[in-house]
Amino acid sequence: MRELPGPDLAAGTSALQRQQALTKPAGSLGRLEEIAQFLATWQGRHPPRCDRPRVAVFAGNHGVAAQGVSAYPPEVTAQMVQNFIKGGAAVNQLTAQIDGDLRVYEMDLQRPTADFTQGPAMDEARCARAIAYGMMAVEQGIDVLCLGEMGIGNSTSAAALCLALFGGEATDWVGPGTGVFGAALERKREVVTKGVAVNKALLNDPLHLLRALGGEELAAIVGAILAARLARTPVLLDGFACAAAAAVVQALDARGLDHCLAGHLSAEPAHGKVLDRLRLKPLLQLDMRLGEGSGAALAVTLLKAAVACHTGMATFGEAGVSERQ
Amino acid sequence: MRELPGPDLAAGTSALQRQQALTKPAGSLGRLEEIAQFLATWQGRHPPRCDRPRVAVFAGNHGVAAQGVSAYPPEVTAQMVQNFIKGGAAVNQLTAQIDGDLRVYEMDLQRPTADFTQGPAMDEARCARAIAYGMMAVEQGIDVLCLGEMGIGNSTSAAALCLALFGGEATDWVGPGTGVFGAALERKREVVTKGVAVNKALLNDPLHLLRALGGEELAAIVGAILAARLARTPVLLDGFACAAAAAVVQALDARGLDHCLAGHLSAEPAHGKVLDRLRLKPLLQLDMRLGEGSGAALAVTLLKAAVACHTGMATFGEAGVSERQ
Repeated sequence: MRELPGPDLAAGTSALQRQQALTKPAGSLGRLEEIAQFLATWQGRHPPRCDRPRVAVFAGNHGVAAQGVSAYPPEVTAQMVQNFIKGGAAVNQLTAQIDGDLRVYEMDLQRPTADFTQGPAMDEARCARAIAYGMMAVEQGIDVLCLGEMGIGNSTSAAALCLALFGGEATDWVGPGTGVFGAALERKREVVTKGVAVNKALLNDPLHLLRALGGEELAAIVGAILAARLARTPVLLDGFACAAAAAVVQALDARGLDHCLAGHLSAEPAHGKVLDRLRLKPLLQLDMRLGEGSGAALAVTLLKAAVACHTGMATFGEAGVSERQ
Repeated sequence: MRELPGPDLAAGTSALQRQQALTKPAGSLGRLEEIAQFLATWQGRHPPRCDRPRVAVFAGNHGVAAQGVSAYPPEVTAQMVQNFIKGGAAVNQLTAQIDGDLRVYEMDLQRPTADFTQGPAMDEARCARAIAYGMMAVEQGIDVLCLGEMGIGNSTSAAALCLALFGGEATDWVGPGTGVFGAALERKREVVTKGVAVNKALLNDPLHLLRALGGEELAAIVGAILAARLARTPVLLDGFACAAAAAVVQALDARGLDHCLAGHLSAEPAHGKVLDRLRLKPLLQLDMRLGEGSGAALAVTLLKAAVACHTGMATFGEAGVSERQ
């Protein structure tokens, strides 16, 4: 794989220096200070900006949904895409709040991936096409890219990716998703265990693992994360499915997520475990578990606040405020 | 005390009913759903609104600051007020982010309260005047009131209020504030212990306790919380000093904070303990410890997001999305 660009330490240092001169006790803006420095470091400029956020939502359908792993029927994926297009979903309202640009990427919804309990979900060509499609979400001029997904069955696919990448048992990675409990949850666990067993021969290579157990929208997120790094666009990840896709990037390159922040810790139980493995500390924790980019879009409000404080505050010198005794 | 108005259960129920019809799995917007219902309940209307937030910052000076309990000299209070007025502080940038109306209430800065290690900080008249002044921050037409404070020495005053209200030892409630450590922190603990001992005779009544150990800006916050309740204006509390003032309201009336949310959990160690006693779960946790209303103002972004989702999303019926199987 092409070498990914590293941090712009000069821009990061400029941010840190300004931070220290602003009219507040050192460090008292906490993670807002970290965010400002992070954005400068990964945008490669000081001051950082957060005027043009984009929210990219990828939608895909999963063959494994036929196994009854979701509380909702598979046609909901396409119905929700229409809802995004008409402006009726949560992510529409949240994108409007941040003056963002919402892009919805509908991926082959009429042609679900194969059921991964029978063999790989995608062949190499299909997975590569999905990754390339995800890369198209990155364009010049975007200050931060929020990644989200929609896909009935994709928390099952995400759990399978995690089991294959991190080990353990299906029960470590399988949760209620849209809301399955009891016997249906047990069925979901069995499906994940079986998917990993059936595809065992493909799981030593992250890209084969992705095509075996992932879906098109998750492969697209992998592509978008990589393209954003190349374009010096910081990324905000959303929930569990998004984090599982990000974990594939980490498997490809241990530093591959250094330009990413986790927007929100989902109520989906496995999300926190994945974020721990990715060494990402979520910005928000509001018991949301919706996906569709909602947690990432909401976290942009914090990025905007961080940039506003960083660029708008007076320094001790400018304001004539006494420094520490 | 005049009886405080209770919740508007009809408005809250309308919010809950709409929430359940929106195009998302039930409960999947987590605390954003709670917030929408809370705002409806305490604004007494459905749908709730968050177009007109006000941020009220009260500034006062503390006689106890002469004991060397802060990392900054007392003149910083007045200097920071000038910084607020000129637009250079963090709270100015954060208020602009939420299209809010920032009001700064400068309280007798040239005349600090008495040093509470020698006797009560305020006489009854001065404390009553400060409470009444705080009430003026509430006007018709405000959708949410964010309360904040500025006052060199006020984390010492807040710690003394907590020790008097909740018991324990000074060490349970005294933290670094603007940044005191080692011997200075030990001194701060001694000052708090002494203040509570010296004023012991006044501590059985919440209002006497407030005048003995509080400051004008903290008394003003007590007044603002009560006035907001009477005006059906929900309140966002800020950090540790603000929570200590709120604890006085709780001591006056066990339901007195039902219209309040905690915007942010501060890095000041005692803040979480106070919020536990107040049964308030903070919306944000970003390691901030600045005061001046910063955590409350930042949390308004979540209230706006909650209202935007609640009012802007389509219902399952409107969007033609299938419900649960």
